[in-house]
Amino acid sequence: MVTRAGVVVTGTEVLTGRVADRNGPWLAEQLRRLGADVGHVVVVGDRPEDLVAALSFLSGTGVDLLITTGGLGPTADDLTAQVVGGFQGRDLAVDPALEQRIGRIVERLMARRGWRADPASTAAGVRKQALVPDGATVLEPVGTAPGLVVPPAAGRTGPPVLVLPGPPGELRGMWPAAVAAAPTRAALAGAAELRQETLRLWGTLEAQLAATLRELEPELGGLEITTCLREGELEIVTRFAAAAQPAYDRFAALLAERYAATLFSTGPTLDDLVATALAGQGLTIAAGESCTGGLLVARLTERPGSSAAVLGGVTAYADEAKEALVGVPGELLAEHGAVSPQVARALADGVRARFGADIGVGITGIAGPGGGTEAKPVGTVHLCVVGPDRAEERSLAVPGSRTAVRERSVTMAMHLLRALLLGGPAA
Amino acid sequence: MVTRAGVVVTGTEVLTGRVADRNGPWLAEQLRRLGADVGHVVVVGDRPEDLVAALSFLSGTGVDLLITTGGLGPTADDLTAQVVGGFQGRDLAVDPALEQRIGRIVERLMARRGWRADPASTAAGVRKQALVPDGATVLEPVGTAPGLVVPPAAGRTGPPVLVLPGPPGELRGMWPAAVAAAPTRAALAGAAELRQETLRLWGTLEAQLAATLRELEPELGGLEITTCLREGELEIVTRFAAAAQPAYDRFAALLAERYAATLFSTGPTLDDLVATALAGQGLTIAAGESCTGGLLVARLTERPGSSAAVLGGVTAYADEAKEALVGVPGELLAEHGAVSPQVARALADGVRARFGADIGVGITGIAGPGGGTEAKPVGTVHLCVVGPDRAEERSLAVPGSRTAVRERSVTMAMHLLRALLLGGPAA
Repeated sequence: MVTRAGVVVTGTEVLTGRVADRNGPWLAEQLRRLGADVGHVVVVGDRPEDLVAALSFLSGTGVDLLITTGGLGPTADDLTAQVVGGFQGRDLAVDPALEQRIGRIVERLMARRGWRADPASTAAGVRKQALVPDGATVLEPVGTAPGLVVPPAAGRTGPPVLVLPGPPGELRGMWPAAVAAAPTRAALAGAAELRQETLRLWGTLEAQLAATLRELEPELGGLEITTCLREGELEIVTRFAAAAQPAYDRFAALLAERYAATLFSTGPTLDDLVATALAGQGLTIAAGESCTGGLLVARLTERPGSSAAVLGGVTAYADEAKEALVGVPGELLAEHGAVSPQVARALADGVRARFGADIGVGITGIAGPGGGTEAKPVGTVHLCVVGPDRAEERSLAVPGSRTAVRERSVTMAMHLLRALLLGGPAA
Repeated sequence: MVTRAGVVVTGTEVLTGRVADRNGPWLAEQLRRLGADVGHVVVVGDRPEDLVAALSFLSGTGVDLLITTGGLGPTADDLTAQVVGGFQGRDLAVDPALEQRIGRIVERLMARRGWRADPASTAAGVRKQALVPDGATVLEPVGTAPGLVVPPAAGRTGPPVLVLPGPPGELRGMWPAAVAAAPTRAALAGAAELRQETLRLWGTLEAQLAATLRELEPELGGLEITTCLREGELEIVTRFAAAAQPAYDRFAALLAERYAATLFSTGPTLDDLVATALAGQGLTIAAGESCTGGLLVARLTERPGSSAAVLGGVTAYADEAKEALVGVPGELLAEHGAVSPQVARALADGVRARFGADIGVGITGIAGPGGGTEAKPVGTVHLCVVGPDRAEERSLAVPGSRTAVRERSVTMAMHLLRALLLGGPAA
């Protein structure tokens, strides 16, 4: 019997896209690791009746555990604790000791930021955040808001509700305590491990893969396979119980054989592969970027410790900057234009020399929507990766928006880096 | 009577966070403009029974229109058309003319990418994508997948379902046709305009604002106010019917008076303000970044036409790069260390001179998780913005993760730019 959980993400700012939800997927992944399957994440605004409808819906799907995120702030539109208390049939009351603890946190916060503190006017907000449903477990605040574990009132049935704050840092900080609470442990007891493995292809059309999967179908029992095309990369994620491990191994081996030319990873992401290879080979890198505006270096420096390999980069939009800061020869710019394979190579060579890096990357192109010509339409991008021994070059015609051109160019640069560092295809 | 719509986002890759959903919020905003209110966005995996449960739930909340995104690809886990057809009580059949059109699109796509085309093996995928519920309106493919408008079968009640593809570019391209379809027009007929206005504060604690909103509550009839704290910025979004415009104007005037020192926008985002001011004042800009790894220039160049103002930037992780590429004096680095107000200033001055820009920005700090010391802990960041007449400087102690430190630093730099360009607070 599969253990199931449901997640409700609250907040009009999430529903309307002003803030991207980072909690629903994170919780789905944590729950998977604990053996609980998430079938739905429901995003609701700040209207209490919408939240109640979402809780009722998920409860009705037979989940063993419900989780809410957000709506625990001091403002009047933050109503999750009250609504969940009502949903579970429990009255709320202010917890005086908790009220004091939150009050001290808010005082410290205002003092540290040097903001005008008006203790009287903030008291109502603090008191609201200290409202606790009768019989609930309080999870100590990581920010200012406490979390709650709220089981159904005596005589009622249904899953317990974990009430967690919306800011991702607070939610993640509170997660261990939420999982350790007795009602959560009881809800997840007996959950069986669910494994997940990923294969990644670069240069295979989704339709081809679909045909292969259809053909292999009789052998795929016990495997839940989903495919996703993202920025030209085809990701195949398979979930299965431990007993289906041999079936998965056979499936992975078959795909590795059929897609030897395009299967570039049996797990790690592209970024993992590049970072691990740079570190393992002790190589340093610098980038000269134009249309990608620094996104490649930003992506390379996302992870902790990247400064050991990434020396930096130059973003040179103007031709003068390409000459002065990266040493691209003026004649090259005049002869071939800034958007040309020759200038991509000169950018790579230039940053490699100026930063004293082992690897130089050059990217030049037209991200649009303006600036295109008949000979060099929007989406024309030239890339070059120069290493100690050899180079990889590529020219692209990327369809779509400015954002699409920038993102696809950065991903292509990462694939060229992967090919330079690890060999294999960069189709 | 309010017109309501519900959105179902499908795809295990979205549910598990491998792909961030960009469609739900975009659709919620489009529907708001058409006068339809979205109460719930439900994210489901690729299991048919979960999709049916989500459709039933939203239909039961009394929505006038249902929209699904995703699940229209050629692989076997893409089942939305079949499930929606069943939900509306309609049989499916292959539309031969549509099958031919999709077949030609797939052929062209494979030819353009130079990928191995095996016409026989892709035919099954094409045929699947051409399956249309009886009585549905076909929306022509923007990528390879057609969309559908599926009304309930004769004798059934319930809202029509718009079936749209998952890739955001395809969905957005298809939206005008989806809205123009007769069942959609009928569902949205009589929807009344819902206005939305935004106020933005920088340097006010959410608890203070909560106290103000409580106090003003008797005057806020007809206004649906939500507040959201994001990266230190407090966003106040108000939705209201046209008749409540005077109430909103009074509310906005009151807040402008009370928060004169921190209210920096009555609508435009921080990025809008900076871009408009740079263009309006005809100024150019360059940035010297360390811990932010190029994210500031990437953010400044996100929007079309930004190359007129943004000359470029240097990301200099290594001290040698700060000296060689930006001209930060070696003595300054030796005396104060790379993470110091002096080096932030030198980075700003250096890029300003080297790029010949009107405005130079310098950012240096410790993003962590390693590299901190007692005197300069992780999260220490120094920023400097130098313009033709004056400069703005700030030092921060940012709590949280590497990502948080990088993002908050970039946002602070944007606020300093805003203050330099437009005056006003940069608290």
